[in-house]
Amino acid sequence: MNPVKHAKVQKDMTVAALIQQYENCAFGAGRLAKAVKIYKEMQAEDVTSFFGLAGAMIPAGMRQVVVDMIKRRDIDVLVTTGANLVHDMIEAFGGEHCQGQCSVDDIELKNSKIDRIYDVYLADEHFTTFENRFDAIVTDILDSSSQTQFTINDFLHEIGSRIMDKNSILRAAVDNEVPVFCPAIADSSIGLQSWMFGYKRDLHVDTFKDIRQIMDICYKARRSGALFIGGGVPKNFIMQSMLLIPKGLDFAIQLTMDTPETGGLSGATLDEAKSWGKIGEHAETVTVYSDATITLPILVASSL
Amino acid sequence: MNPVKHAKVQKDMTVAALIQQYENCAFGAGRLAKAVKIYKEMQAEDVTSFFGLAGAMIPAGMRQVVVDMIKRRDIDVLVTTGANLVHDMIEAFGGEHCQGQCSVDDIELKNSKIDRIYDVYLADEHFTTFENRFDAIVTDILDSSSQTQFTINDFLHEIGSRIMDKNSILRAAVDNEVPVFCPAIADSSIGLQSWMFGYKRDLHVDTFKDIRQIMDICYKARRSGALFIGGGVPKNFIMQSMLLIPKGLDFAIQLTMDTPETGGLSGATLDEAKSWGKIGEHAETVTVYSDATITLPILVASSL
Amino acid sequence: MNPVKHAKVQKDMTVAALIQQYENCAFGAGRLAKAVKIYKEMQAEDVTSFFGLAGAMIPAGMRQVVVDMIKRRDIDVLVTTGANLVHDMIEAFGGEHCQGQCSVDDIELKNSKIDRIYDVYLADEHFTTFENRFDAIVTDILDSSSQTQFTINDFLHEIGSRIMDKNSILRAAVDNEVPVFCPAIADSSIGLQSWMFGYKRDLHVDTFKDIRQIMDICYKARRSGALFIGGGVPKNFIMQSMLLIPKGLDFAIQLTMDTPETGGLSGATLDEAKSWGKIGEHAETVTVYSDATITLPILVASSL
Amino acid sequence: MNPVKHAKVQKDMTVAALIQQYENCAFGAGRLAKAVKIYKEMQAEDVTSFFGLAGAMIPAGMRQVVVDMIKRRDIDVLVTTGANLVHDMIEAFGGEHCQGQCSVDDIELKNSKIDRIYDVYLADEHFTTFENRFDAIVTDILDSSSQTQFTINDFLHEIGSRIMDKNSILRAAVDNEVPVFCPAIADSSIGLQSWMFGYKRDLHVDTFKDIRQIMDICYKARRSGALFIGGGVPKNFIMQSMLLIPKGLDFAIQLTMDTPETGGLSGATLDEAKSWGKIGEHAETVTVYSDATITLPILVASSL
Repeated sequence: MNPVKHAKVQKDMTVAALIQQYENCAFGAGRLAKAVKIYKEMQAEDVTSFFGLAGAMIPAGMRQVVVDMIKRRDIDVLVTTGANLVHDMIEAFGGEHCQGQCSVDDIELKNSKIDRIYDVYLADEHFTTFENRFDAIVTDILDSSSQTQFTINDFLHEIGSRIMDKNSILRAAVDNEVPVFCPAIADSSIGLQSWMFGYKRDLHVDTFKDIRQIMDICYKARRSGALFIGGGVPKNFIMQSMLLIPKGLDFAIQLTMDTPETGGLSGATLDEAKSWGKIGEHAETVTVYSDATITLPILVASSL
Repeated sequence: MNPVKHAKVQKDMTVAALIQQYENCAFGAGRLAKAVKIYKEMQAEDVTSFFGLAGAMIPAGMRQVVVDMIKRRDIDVLVTTGANLVHDMIEAFGGEHCQGQCSVDDIELKNSKIDRIYDVYLADEHFTTFENRFDAIVTDILDSSSQTQFTINDFLHEIGSRIMDKNSILRAAVDNEVPVFCPAIADSSIGLQSWMFGYKRDLHVDTFKDIRQIMDICYKARRSGALFIGGGVPKNFIMQSMLLIPKGLDFAIQLTMDTPETGGLSGATLDEAKSWGKIGEHAETVTVYSDATITLPILVASSL
Repeated sequence: MNPVKHAKVQKDMTVAALIQQYENCAFGAGRLAKAVKIYKEMQAEDVTSFFGLAGAMIPAGMRQVVVDMIKRRDIDVLVTTGANLVHDMIEAFGGEHCQGQCSVDDIELKNSKIDRIYDVYLADEHFTTFENRFDAIVTDILDSSSQTQFTINDFLHEIGSRIMDKNSILRAAVDNEVPVFCPAIADSSIGLQSWMFGYKRDLHVDTFKDIRQIMDICYKARRSGALFIGGGVPKNFIMQSMLLIPKGLDFAIQLTMDTPETGGLSGATLDEAKSWGKIGEHAETVTVYSDATITLPILVASSL
Repeated sequence: MNPVKHAKVQKDMTVAALIQQYENCAFGAGRLAKAVKIYKEMQAEDVTSFFGLAGAMIPAGMRQVVVDMIKRRDIDVLVTTGANLVHDMIEAFGGEHCQGQCSVDDIELKNSKIDRIYDVYLADEHFTTFENRFDAIVTDILDSSSQTQFTINDFLHEIGSRIMDKNSILRAAVDNEVPVFCPAIADSSIGLQSWMFGYKRDLHVDTFKDIRQIMDICYKARRSGALFIGGGVPKNFIMQSMLLIPKGLDFAIQLTMDTPETGGLSGATLDEAKSWGKIGEHAETVTVYSDATITLPILVASSL
């Protein structure tokens, strides 16, 4: 057993040095240090890294961190929510999120045409821009292809390749050949916009067919690891893909505020996933119960 | 301002009488009483009731409660997760969930071919039955129809009408004309099974097209209400459908353990939804922060 | 292994019948049913029952439930916070708590001389009444006794015997010979008031000496059980008393919203207490993660 | 309104530079940056800084951070739990805490004479050392003084001045003239030990009298600020001291995992405290919902 050695902080210390101090601590600090260690191991050549990104991380200011992870190929596969993609596109199309308050009169916000996401404000007008630009992009996709049937993964690839902003998640994913999966894409403004588009032109996006694409990646992986931010569909979708792979994940990190006591999958322990075989018996795993807008940048900064 | 009157409990008191005691309390007790009041109002003829069912409520023993809600038409529309539907079908096909422990050696469970969901155990073999039966049902769907293109909603309707167990959620929904939406259906064993089925035969399930179906329901609703168990895709999908309806929801109840402090949509307050217009300015709303396996049966029992 | 049987709810069902339904469920429902079972066993003649009452249960409307537990001698020892005792006395002295809102302008409340406790409001003036009455009671205690040195337990007994309201927790505890411990009594308006009283007259209340009183109870107990509402000092104080008893608690129930992931004692699992010997190896234990204003009345009602 | 600017992380960046990136973010990241800003302002000459330290921070590896805060006089008053003081003394007397697991067989630990605190292990034997040393210290206190009546604050000062380890919290507090308050001191091994000591010799520690000492500090403060780690008695005791000061706290920071939804004081918002006047109307306040073993060292490191 290793003794707890007490963290010592110093002026001008680096994030990496802070994590070194955390290595000998317990609770969240010790777990975050372990997460850094596992994340570094996941960067090995032969590890396929999945990134399950739930939550509202883009509005909160985590877009650049995610994009840089893609550009450096820290991650090989992105599974995320429609919301993260929509908010990424809103910024790609010139919109911006603003720092706001979470204790506020929401009726007043509504009357000012401002949408609230916890302590982030977003002007309604940016959705109008999003809708127009999204419509133009989907029109171009159909115009430039004989195809009208897409998988979700292909559809997102087509969209990403038409986004001009190289700092967009979807565009960076295309540029760096990181496939993006978003099983619940209908559950977002992309869904609403695609439905409205359907009144004009024929667009078929299949809900099941890109499972083949993620399963192919799984089968080919020598070793595999996953970093989960929050739970939700991204976590479950990566986990279920492991169900059919004999050995499951070799590495898994959760940065989350969800706890197991609700019984839901979002907060489920990584041990629970071992009973299913989603995570391997000897996998290295850790869960850090803390706000991921704090822990994700630390994880990334200290593993560079 | 109403004074807090202290709850008095008695031998053989009914659940409804307990809720009457809670009416004059605060914290969770007061909120649960308010939820019952709102839920009763939502039963009015002219209110379209949406039910957003996340979590793992079926494994935990809530199947009958949900089915009875459908049979009584307490709810008019069900939006749920693939997991809830899969576990419903597992039971429809003769499988069973068991009471287990959450502090357990998961490797031992794995070796005994038992999958764990918090403190529920499920024998792996039930998935084999599920896969065979699901395969037969989808084969029959394609055999008995010239159609190969389905919306998710239609696909679930076709499945439901082929389930023999009248106590199945999907079957009861068909019998009682309650449409079922499941935007993240790919993120479940239904997804995995449908992908494998795709190697044999052509099956197209569109990811966007049933948005039209839920929007039609929204447009027709004179008044609308929603009961949310947990958050996730079911909550967001109902909420986003309200974005295009001028007045938003008139009633909303959340039974959840998710809190706002994570910034995610699952724990977002119902007030936040007012800034977006998803919930109307004058809507009656309440959130009860407690385990929904405790509060849902109470809510239902005391409103009968 | 017992199969999960799905809860069935019915019109006019009793709380006890609901709990019977929960017995075959999992998650919170199953745990609450187990808590009822353990609570009933704790009522056996030879079990000394400790009640650790943290939180702000009195303002929330739980005073009558607690008082009735004392009157029926469901519990043998009460360990609680100064806050619960102060709010009990405020009501004993004619004050009242009111149902309010938790999303509110607190500056406005301040200007209206209203103190907020989550969604409960309390008029400032009730503290003035409390101060006067408390001052009179302590004056009477010193006048009627040659003693100026008290243990906290004795001091509370003296106060309780001077409270007219038989529905007060402190008075009911005196009437029914249930000792009340409150190690952090200084951390409440009783503390502030006693400090101010100290400018007028000599009052000595010892912080350590009633440990002897609780230890005596522990040593005499044939079997012992504890019901914990929340954590804090009441939980820890009961737990530490068990440290010196060879076999620890035989029964333990936690009704709480605190989870283990913070590392603090409030959310610590009951298993953790077994490593210390505070809870016996073979003890029956359960934790219900839900709002105790909902679960405590249910627990009590269904065990009558 | 300030736009969210996305955090950019870099190799070898300092903790302070990371916080600069967080300044333009939202959610926990934005809040942590705001906490750093407030903490720096609290270091001004004319601000009296209270530090409310709950939780089990010493076992988790935060002892050095706390001691250095005392040595630099970042804080002027410490209010804490008996547990933190006991674990500090255990280390001062040569004991050590060890990194362990939170999923473990607690009966096995018990049989190995190891006590568990979440994922920290502590050998039982260190308590024996603690008991002997504590006994010797209290004997010496009584031997070297004609006094047998102490306030808790004085008692801790006497203990602290007899601890050899200059890296002990209690000793550093004495050396740097930082008064230590611990209203629930009885609720710890100090309490158990003092009770047993009482069988040998007369020791009177008053539970109310050091309220005068903290009130004197409050009255003299030109401006005041508080940093709260977790809630519990330390938070409430500082808060209630502000009740009698006209303007309340000017600055307040909470680093916690406790959320308001339970209704308890630990998770109560800082706004709620404004209704009571514990925090001033125009005070600068922020709550960071994250594991404090992660956020406290960051807060301190980036404000040096």
